[in-house]
Amino acid sequence: MYTLSPNESEQLHAYWRAANYLSAGQIYLHTNALLKEPLKSAHIKPRLLGHWGTCPGLNLVYTHLNRLIIKNKASVLFVAGPGHGAPAVLSQLYLEGSYSAFYPQVTQDEAGMNLLFRQFSTPYGMPSHVTALTPGSIHEGGELGYSLVHAFGAVFDNPDVIAACVIGDGEAETGALAASWQSIHFLNPARDGAVLPILHINGYKISSLTILARMSDAEITSLFSGLGYQPYFVTGDDAVEVHEILATALDQAYRDIKHIQQQIRQEGLSRPQMAWPMIVLRTPKGWTCPEMLEGKQLEGSFRSHQVPIPDAGENEEQLKLLESWLRSYDPASLFTDTGHLQPLIQSLVPPSELKMGMHPAANGGILTKPLQLPEYSDYAVEIDKPGITKAGATKETGKYLADVFRFNDPAQNFRLFCPDETSSNKLNAVFEATERCFTGPLDKGDDKVSATGRVMEVLSEHLCQGWYEGYLLTGRHGLFACYEAFITIIDSMMTQYAKWLKLCHEVSWRRPIPSLNYLLTSHAWRQDHNGYSHQGPGFIDAVISKKNHIIRIYLPPDANSLLAVTHHCLQTTNYINVIIAGKQPSLQWLTVEDAARHCEQGASIWEWAGNEKQNEEGIENNQAVSLPHVVLTCAGDVPTLETIAAAWLLRKHLPALAVRVVNVVDLMSLAITHPHALEEDAFARVFTEEQPVVFAFHGYPRVIHDLVHGRPSTSRFHVRGYAEEGTTTTPFDMVVLNSMSRYHLAIKAIRESVLNDTTEANNAIALFERKLQEHTSYIKEHMDDMPEIANWHWS
Amino acid sequence: MYTLSPNESEQLHAYWRAANYLSAGQIYLHTNALLKEPLKSAHIKPRLLGHWGTCPGLNLVYTHLNRLIIKNKASVLFVAGPGHGAPAVLSQLYLEGSYSAFYPQVTQDEAGMNLLFRQFSTPYGMPSHVTALTPGSIHEGGELGYSLVHAFGAVFDNPDVIAACVIGDGEAETGALAASWQSIHFLNPARDGAVLPILHINGYKISSLTILARMSDAEITSLFSGLGYQPYFVTGDDAVEVHEILATALDQAYRDIKHIQQQIRQEGLSRPQMAWPMIVLRTPKGWTCPEMLEGKQLEGSFRSHQVPIPDAGENEEQLKLLESWLRSYDPASLFTDTGHLQPLIQSLVPPSELKMGMHPAANGGILTKPLQLPEYSDYAVEIDKPGITKAGATKETGKYLADVFRFNDPAQNFRLFCPDETSSNKLNAVFEATERCFTGPLDKGDDKVSATGRVMEVLSEHLCQGWYEGYLLTGRHGLFACYEAFITIIDSMMTQYAKWLKLCHEVSWRRPIPSLNYLLTSHAWRQDHNGYSHQGPGFIDAVISKKNHIIRIYLPPDANSLLAVTHHCLQTTNYINVIIAGKQPSLQWLTVEDAARHCEQGASIWEWAGNEKQNEEGIENNQAVSLPHVVLTCAGDVPTLETIAAAWLLRKHLPALAVRVVNVVDLMSLAITHPHALEEDAFARVFTEEQPVVFAFHGYPRVIHDLVHGRPSTSRFHVRGYAEEGTTTTPFDMVVLNSMSRYHLAIKAIRESVLNDTTEANNAIALFERKLQEHTSYIKEHMDDMPEIANWHWS
Repeated sequence: MYTLSPNESEQLHAYWRAANYLSAGQIYLHTNALLKEPLKSAHIKPRLLGHWGTCPGLNLVYTHLNRLIIKNKASVLFVAGPGHGAPAVLSQLYLEGSYSAFYPQVTQDEAGMNLLFRQFSTPYGMPSHVTALTPGSIHEGGELGYSLVHAFGAVFDNPDVIAACVIGDGEAETGALAASWQSIHFLNPARDGAVLPILHINGYKISSLTILARMSDAEITSLFSGLGYQPYFVTGDDAVEVHEILATALDQAYRDIKHIQQQIRQEGLSRPQMAWPMIVLRTPKGWTCPEMLEGKQLEGSFRSHQVPIPDAGENEEQLKLLESWLRSYDPASLFTDTGHLQPLIQSLVPPSELKMGMHPAANGGILTKPLQLPEYSDYAVEIDKPGITKAGATKETGKYLADVFRFNDPAQNFRLFCPDETSSNKLNAVFEATERCFTGPLDKGDDKVSATGRVMEVLSEHLCQGWYEGYLLTGRHGLFACYEAFITIIDSMMTQYAKWLKLCHEVSWRRPIPSLNYLLTSHAWRQDHNGYSHQGPGFIDAVISKKNHIIRIYLPPDANSLLAVTHHCLQTTNYINVIIAGKQPSLQWLTVEDAARHCEQGASIWEWAGNEKQNEEGIENNQAVSLPHVVLTCAGDVPTLETIAAAWLLRKHLPALAVRVVNVVDLMSLAITHPHALEEDAFARVFTEEQPVVFAFHGYPRVIHDLVHGRPSTSRFHVRGYAEEGTTTTPFDMVVLNSMSRYHLAIKAIRESVLNDTTEANNAIALFERKLQEHTSYIKEHMDDMPEIANWHWS
Repeated sequence: MYTLSPNESEQLHAYWRAANYLSAGQIYLHTNALLKEPLKSAHIKPRLLGHWGTCPGLNLVYTHLNRLIIKNKASVLFVAGPGHGAPAVLSQLYLEGSYSAFYPQVTQDEAGMNLLFRQFSTPYGMPSHVTALTPGSIHEGGELGYSLVHAFGAVFDNPDVIAACVIGDGEAETGALAASWQSIHFLNPARDGAVLPILHINGYKISSLTILARMSDAEITSLFSGLGYQPYFVTGDDAVEVHEILATALDQAYRDIKHIQQQIRQEGLSRPQMAWPMIVLRTPKGWTCPEMLEGKQLEGSFRSHQVPIPDAGENEEQLKLLESWLRSYDPASLFTDTGHLQPLIQSLVPPSELKMGMHPAANGGILTKPLQLPEYSDYAVEIDKPGITKAGATKETGKYLADVFRFNDPAQNFRLFCPDETSSNKLNAVFEATERCFTGPLDKGDDKVSATGRVMEVLSEHLCQGWYEGYLLTGRHGLFACYEAFITIIDSMMTQYAKWLKLCHEVSWRRPIPSLNYLLTSHAWRQDHNGYSHQGPGFIDAVISKKNHIIRIYLPPDANSLLAVTHHCLQTTNYINVIIAGKQPSLQWLTVEDAARHCEQGASIWEWAGNEKQNEEGIENNQAVSLPHVVLTCAGDVPTLETIAAAWLLRKHLPALAVRVVNVVDLMSLAITHPHALEEDAFARVFTEEQPVVFAFHGYPRVIHDLVHGRPSTSRFHVRGYAEEGTTTTPFDMVVLNSMSRYHLAIKAIRESVLNDTTEANNAIALFERKLQEHTSYIKEHMDDMPEIANWHWS
């Protein structure tokens, strides 16, 4: 008994041929789309781009998914891992009418088909990878490795959705993809949808073989069974046979998914009693293109990876070969004379609301419900006077986040992502409202773990980032809390997300989605106990190069300002928000009202910390009546502590020096062109026009060097920050090692001021230098019986 | 029949107890190391640091490896994935005497033991993670995920070495680790050593369960069999039993390895006929620490991950519990009254040359043989005049690299690492000298692949980087060629490597190793066809924040300068060299002699490209006799082209403007404190003191803003570079989009010069603006029938 009737088989095959024809057409033709004329070199694009090799496989899967969707009224989100195969995805969108729905000029007729072809991979046309311009997509096809993790993120809290995720055998070699299979242990069939991985093994990458291609079916079965999947193999190079096998496999996979969901949702089982299905599709690379070119194998070889017949425009032989290839699909049987779909093909187009190109989750902003947020001032730390109370910033924000979970429990649209560090990052108050998520077997010794938990902990920054991206892009909310040093593991994922987001801002039909929020803690300055490997503020550098209208970087100096910033970020859309704040109990500076005001301004004068008023005529409305001798500026909680201590030291030991203290909470307020940039006059009011600025910064000093470039008299900005010095030591020694201690700041302030070289100034400097020496001697002394180790640093 | 005699079992158990005792001692005690006195809170360190949870497992493995080493005279390199477990590694080094060999103050007696304890995790002491300070180690324990890939890199071309690699079940969740299992398909038993993965499943991470812990033995067997390994399970919590099972498993694994090697080396089989062995060790987390603390489970739970009894210093109950724990190892039975090893323990110490802590490969500089390098000038492109000849920089360097392979074939100490892009990056000349490496089954369609190939292609930047690090750290040479945009995938690995390298510079016994060389090509400016996702110069930003004495960044403007730079980098040690150069055929500028001179200087005036001489009194010895009106500066091949074109346009259309052209090949020559920094006067000779500089840069402009901070009159530096604008377009449009085109540069040069606002100047500007408009109109016009897509960019 066959799964497919002869008619269905014919229908699938025709649809597939149509899609393949359109894919090849996009790569080669800029006119004569229906091949009404004999092919001439004038019809060939001047530059041939696009990746053919993966297209037939993508087309095969997409075509068969249409059948599945129509048959089952299934809600399927398509994720194209081999996103270089945009010609396939675009062909499918065109056939089903989604392309025209978003780009009405590209009509489903001859003119539209010519336009489809012409705009593929031409300047400002449709890129050769799937991008934010591609309807129905949440997944960029450029940097490989993230398809499967995106698919999982997309179906979390989306119980009715199946993400059909095609994974190339090249992509499968990446670290991110290899880790992504583990996601199945975090998928709860009761509340989440399903992911159907379709591993497409076509054997070759751009110029070499793939590892998976050289593994036997038995090895592959063994591997994926171990990972928790039941692989269904679809192998062949006879299209009719493959249609039958693939349709059967997809039907089976769909039944498996429904069965698992029923076991959990209706029968009340706590865990699935069977493995999740996946498809292993072994079909030739570049399938249906010419078998040979100039004596070398093309179809089924890496030579069909990109443009299989590269010189068709110039070489008559190749042009003929191309024509025979294109005509092998028999376009007249697929499209009418006017370029409309033949009825056989039209009948495989799902109804509009089920078309994969129209899936609302792929334009997640449509579905976004704003978060219900508590009043953050309810969680404020009481502050009588600055610098008295101690509190842990993340601990307080953890309480706020617990209520974010509670308030949004009905909507099931908020998750916290964290590489096993929620407690270590002192955010554990959230565990009063929810738990860690794990859907595998639990032990009695487990703490705060359940299948319904909303804290996604896994020791993989890649999975945290990828799940979160998938979750966001389908319109939900979240926060990624991470050790600062290890967030750079996903530098490149953040970069690609920023690129996606930039396009979203520019594509009119892409609706805003919630911002991507990072809370970086356990930061560089307080990893003295964990040592040098844990000390790295480099993520700022990766983020800051992105477009100004996309990025926001906050360095809240205390608990109340972290609350204010977090509350703000959770309400924003289409940004990447980076928040950096410590987890250790620290001195508090601002009441919640002051924090709100300060965060609003981005950077402001902390009058109480300086001594302008005492020395001069004071400050009114954040505007000094006269100029301080020096501006001590800080951004970041540890730099703030050191700066305030430096100001205090100076008040005490060199009272004649008029010191202003400025805190920068919104880093981009320093920039010139950022939307949050201080206007020229505001900048001058805060930093003066010419007075020396001693700047203590959380990250690498170079960040500030760049930001102030173009501001008045930049040579007066003397920046101290992380100078890539560290080891296992004390928190104070960390700031000493990096020349950012209170003493360093105070000395630099004096040296750069008009008072430099006066007797009082020299006395103060001598005192501060002695203090530094005492500190260093103390540490040295305590190490003096282990010279080989101790000396490596003092040499 | 037992594997272990009763005496061996006793010996192993005693050794293990001794190591565990020392591990706990390091965490808790700063004196009273032998517990001769009753434990008092005064003996407890003021701050308790270190990760106990993984120590018993590491100690167990290390102890048993000693037995294996003695029995077989095996050369074993130990890689500790759970590097947080430094107390265990350090205990082992201490027991075997390697610690004292490198740090003679830490004697193997009571005083030395006290010192061992005291210096653990105290300021400037031994960090709580394995670092470059740890003898016998090539692997930092801070950022998890790279142990297995390092192990493979270390044994490539090291046929006699077995890397025993302990992998934690936390680390196993990371992307890099998940991908690393695939390395087995690149290991050639004929020429490479072996890796023995020891997967330690102790069940918990810092505060949650691990995925692997909840998988059944059957699932784990299935998973790893699929990956190509034969897992041997060692499960238990009865030490005597576990010793027997582990010893048996290790013996079996060793036999398997020898058997595979014999099959290939003696019997001439082309591929192993059996799977590679691995150990799966399932023992309790924190094994042998107290079972319970204050009613909660400790041993076997995440609560033993770090410091199991956290308040032993303050809490009397906890102190007692700690004392009974420490005494449970019966230190008097392990150490003599003077703190020397009891004979039973001493007998399990391998001979010096086989001690894992003394393994020469772990201090690879000892073994390094310098590369035999060809004369690079033999590969030079002939240049008659600048700007006439076209050549592809990487193509020419590929020929040079082919000879590097040939020259060093006898030494078998050079490899090229590349994510499947060697041909795409136009380095394919190397395939005339070697092939891609793959040790799995080959097909007739495969091109340039063999088990003896030295080009390591896999679609994982993590594997390329990790293999290369392991290969370097054991004293060999290499080059990592990569698409520029995707090298940021390993930002954090490079950062950790830079940290390791910084320590190597400071630890006297660490011998210099060959530099880590990146050749980044297919770069941001010529990925116009691949689109926005492929356009990212951010790796410079990640590298440049590292210590000045470690990093070198080169932007050779043409083929001959790429040859010169590559040749130089391959001879250096202990650096991270980043070379960025295009692969497309481009205009050539420098003869090989000029290139050599230019690279030597770092930045120099290209007299022929400017028109100072014509206008003023000329340049002698790279020193202008008088000042140009404007300095056009460029770094990077595309910026060089645009700058030279801008200078040409200015000469033609505004000849009165005295233009100097400066090219920067060594980026760090711009810095102030870098060893390659131009001295103040040299900087002034090249860039003048005050004339405007229009700087076209390959990367983000912020890099230059930072580098020139502190140089004279920085506000005159007007930098154009990658402004995060891109799409599928033309190469020239890329520079237009980012305002770095020849016209932009020429206009800016005029605007910033003294000639601004003269009639001639205004005419020239008008002309250039018209040219830009024409370009933009042309592209717009060709897109005007697809407004929705085209307009997203022009809006």
